[in-house]
Amino acid sequence: MGKNLTTRKEDYSKWYNELVIKADLAENSGVRGCMVIKPYGYAIWEKMQAGLDKMFKETGHENAYFPIFIPKSYLSKEASHVEGFAKECAVVTHYRLKNAEDGSGIIVDPEAKLEEELIVRPTSETIIWDTYRRWIQSYRDLPLLINQWANVVRWEMRTRLFLRTAEFLWQEGHTAHATEQEAIEEAEKILDIYADFAENHMAVPVIKGTKTEVERFAGAVETYCIEALMQDGKALQAGTSHFLGQNFAKAFDVKFANKEGQQDYVWATSWGVSTRLMGALIMTHSDDNGLVLPPKLAPIQVVIVPIYKGMDQLEAISEKVDPLVKELRSKGISVKYDDRDTHKPGFKFNEYELKGVPVRLAIGQRDLQNETFEVARRDTLEKETVKASEVITHIEELLEKIQENIYNRALDYRDEHITRVDSYDEFKTLLESKGGFFLAHWDGTAETEERIKEETKATIRCIPLSDGKEEGKCMVTGKPSSQRVIFAKAY
Amino acid sequence: MGKNLTTRKEDYSKWYNELVIKADLAENSGVRGCMVIKPYGYAIWEKMQAGLDKMFKETGHENAYFPIFIPKSYLSKEASHVEGFAKECAVVTHYRLKNAEDGSGIIVDPEAKLEEELIVRPTSETIIWDTYRRWIQSYRDLPLLINQWANVVRWEMRTRLFLRTAEFLWQEGHTAHATEQEAIEEAEKILDIYADFAENHMAVPVIKGTKTEVERFAGAVETYCIEALMQDGKALQAGTSHFLGQNFAKAFDVKFANKEGQQDYVWATSWGVSTRLMGALIMTHSDDNGLVLPPKLAPIQVVIVPIYKGMDQLEAISEKVDPLVKELRSKGISVKYDDRDTHKPGFKFNEYELKGVPVRLAIGQRDLQNETFEVARRDTLEKETVKASEVITHIEELLEKIQENIYNRALDYRDEHITRVDSYDEFKTLLESKGGFFLAHWDGTAETEERIKEETKATIRCIPLSDGKEEGKCMVTGKPSSQRVIFAKAY
Repeated sequence: MGKNLTTRKEDYSKWYNELVIKADLAENSGVRGCMVIKPYGYAIWEKMQAGLDKMFKETGHENAYFPIFIPKSYLSKEASHVEGFAKECAVVTHYRLKNAEDGSGIIVDPEAKLEEELIVRPTSETIIWDTYRRWIQSYRDLPLLINQWANVVRWEMRTRLFLRTAEFLWQEGHTAHATEQEAIEEAEKILDIYADFAENHMAVPVIKGTKTEVERFAGAVETYCIEALMQDGKALQAGTSHFLGQNFAKAFDVKFANKEGQQDYVWATSWGVSTRLMGALIMTHSDDNGLVLPPKLAPIQVVIVPIYKGMDQLEAISEKVDPLVKELRSKGISVKYDDRDTHKPGFKFNEYELKGVPVRLAIGQRDLQNETFEVARRDTLEKETVKASEVITHIEELLEKIQENIYNRALDYRDEHITRVDSYDEFKTLLESKGGFFLAHWDGTAETEERIKEETKATIRCIPLSDGKEEGKCMVTGKPSSQRVIFAKAY
Repeated sequence: MGKNLTTRKEDYSKWYNELVIKADLAENSGVRGCMVIKPYGYAIWEKMQAGLDKMFKETGHENAYFPIFIPKSYLSKEASHVEGFAKECAVVTHYRLKNAEDGSGIIVDPEAKLEEELIVRPTSETIIWDTYRRWIQSYRDLPLLINQWANVVRWEMRTRLFLRTAEFLWQEGHTAHATEQEAIEEAEKILDIYADFAENHMAVPVIKGTKTEVERFAGAVETYCIEALMQDGKALQAGTSHFLGQNFAKAFDVKFANKEGQQDYVWATSWGVSTRLMGALIMTHSDDNGLVLPPKLAPIQVVIVPIYKGMDQLEAISEKVDPLVKELRSKGISVKYDDRDTHKPGFKFNEYELKGVPVRLAIGQRDLQNETFEVARRDTLEKETVKASEVITHIEELLEKIQENIYNRALDYRDEHITRVDSYDEFKTLLESKGGFFLAHWDGTAETEERIKEETKATIRCIPLSDGKEEGKCMVTGKPSSQRVIFAKAY
């Protein structure tokens, strides 16, 4: 198709990397592990932000902003938390540069050493709970439902655009509650919001579940997650919501007077999704021709390409197109009329296919005469001729159809790739030949979980919320198990 | 009024600090110089962001995101740029913490030292121009009109909430152009956008001008600025737009093939406004009772307080209020109905005055009988009784009136505090007794500028764009001058 894109079959990983670059979504920067999010990629992220932000606000959450730096001593206050993040954090040690006295250039000024090192936030529980101590005195101050949109840094050694970067953008919610039950309900409510957003905006089907102890967030009592399946059969964790118990309240001494006037530690949750969602979005829907975007998140939903020779023909076309553009926009549909005379229609068709624009209209001389448009949909690459008088209704319906179709396509793929296995041999064979999610019994021990990971590279993605209890035997050790869990190789 | 707020007359600086805290806008964090922006303050900032973002997009700009870290070598590439920022930057030197072997706690792992130190961005010209080198080959790639919303860090020693903080939030635009003229026009267009936003959204009158060489941005050929006047007679720089010439293009070797096929360096601008605008907003309008917010930026535009005894009375009031809330919201007006039974009306009145809610409605038993509301406006503290049937129109008009009134009030104050002076003695006397902006002749030298600053603490805020040429003599040296410039003490 002229896009010079490696196919998924040839090399899925290479296909992804090329696609991110060629579709102008992001690129690596001169700073190890940090990406540049390009305007087209950022426009998709902005739509994700807007969608999620609305859902958070509708459920009573407010945005705020906390410092990017975390004093080393804060990070150390919650034992398992520091254990989880100490190995990969950017540490600020000085606050000034100066000219080297030997003229060799700009150096760090040794006299400007910080008394206490600062960590660039990998997540903000500690700085936020240090703040909440000042904000919370009584049950009347609860619940506290706060979210922040921010950048965070985790010093990953092996990075990939959107999927794993040293710096990434995310939202992190941090809530405080008077009771354990209320905090658990909040963590679950947010999980539902994440799943709703993934399925209804991103068109990405997800499985809701809880993490095993090994995979739990550093400092959490329970980690809820949504897991999506990519087209190469690997899982991608798309969002997590943590019930933190009283761990951070105890670490930062955040107590409140309850209705009975007694002092108690506050109950907490935290939850986040990041620019990693961009990776999930790209890998779930796109094909060998490029991106396929759900209409709800596409920066350009409809592109119109004129096919003409000479300015007279273009003018005649523009006369038809201009009012159409106006009317589509008035309906909240984002439209681009690409009348550049520097590029041929074929070039433009390729470009918008690569960029995943859901609907493409073309109009040439014959269309002008017949009062029609050629309408092409990106998800199926089908084309049809539509009367000009019906084109707006047609587009409105088509956008909905595409949103639905790509969700169903992803759902079919996902469901075809959920396999129940009862033997470890079968599991190992199918993991390699077919991939996907595997529902299997597990004895509940970290040892067995670790052994499976070492031997197969598969991890327990989650203990699914929707699957009920079922007596069985661990596929590895034969020990008793009361519920199947989901295994997969993962990003 | 029960707010325990220091008055402006008693101590303007203390008044400001207390107001920021008491109105729940922001507070200091446990990290030196870094603030926590609280939900109410952040909601105002979100409205500012939304207003500006719309204006940027309407003028063809797109958002993107660049890394938070800048390699030390990048910062050093533009000589005056590094000179300007080296003295106050946070330096990342290590990427891991570990447990001390002597059990003394968590320490920086000396083995995880970075080969090259990274600076937490104080501004992003260098990392962005390093990226633009890859994006720009031909005149067809120009102009490049990009903005980013981000956090930046400048290691200020003396900090004040919103006005000067080690970390702050801002937007920074970075554009690339084929010609000098086009870049200058862009810098000026953005200045107009900033002035428009300040005056028509924030209701803060500003003077547009250019900076002297001494006050120019580190790396700029010309710095345009908008200057506002606070109620204590001190100036506040509210936004800057820089024409960067080819300085960064040369430092980062960004050339393009022009229409004639020749290679030339690209022309650049950069421009930014920050959370400092919050300081300008607060200090321009607020009074001894608390915040006064322009309706266009108020998170809550109308608050409704019921005055009742017992649940029956409250129910009767709510029956009247609920449909009103609904209708106001449908008109895009943000309304809060505060029916909390934990606080008395007087307490609520105080709270919303402190928080600057533009319009307050109260409704009690007599209002119910008479089918009226008591309507109070925050800017003048005037109250009137309005028929229920006319209250919506009344509110709509009142919001517009308040927006206009606080602008005019600030404009009157500002204009009364622009003084033309011709002698240095007069300048010094009036600077102390009256404050404000001073239009005076200056000989154009850095020496005189420096001397005035040392002797009076006043700086040249700008060379105003609107004032024409006028022959005169420098008020200090008597040397010839061709235009008056604006002096003031400044934040």
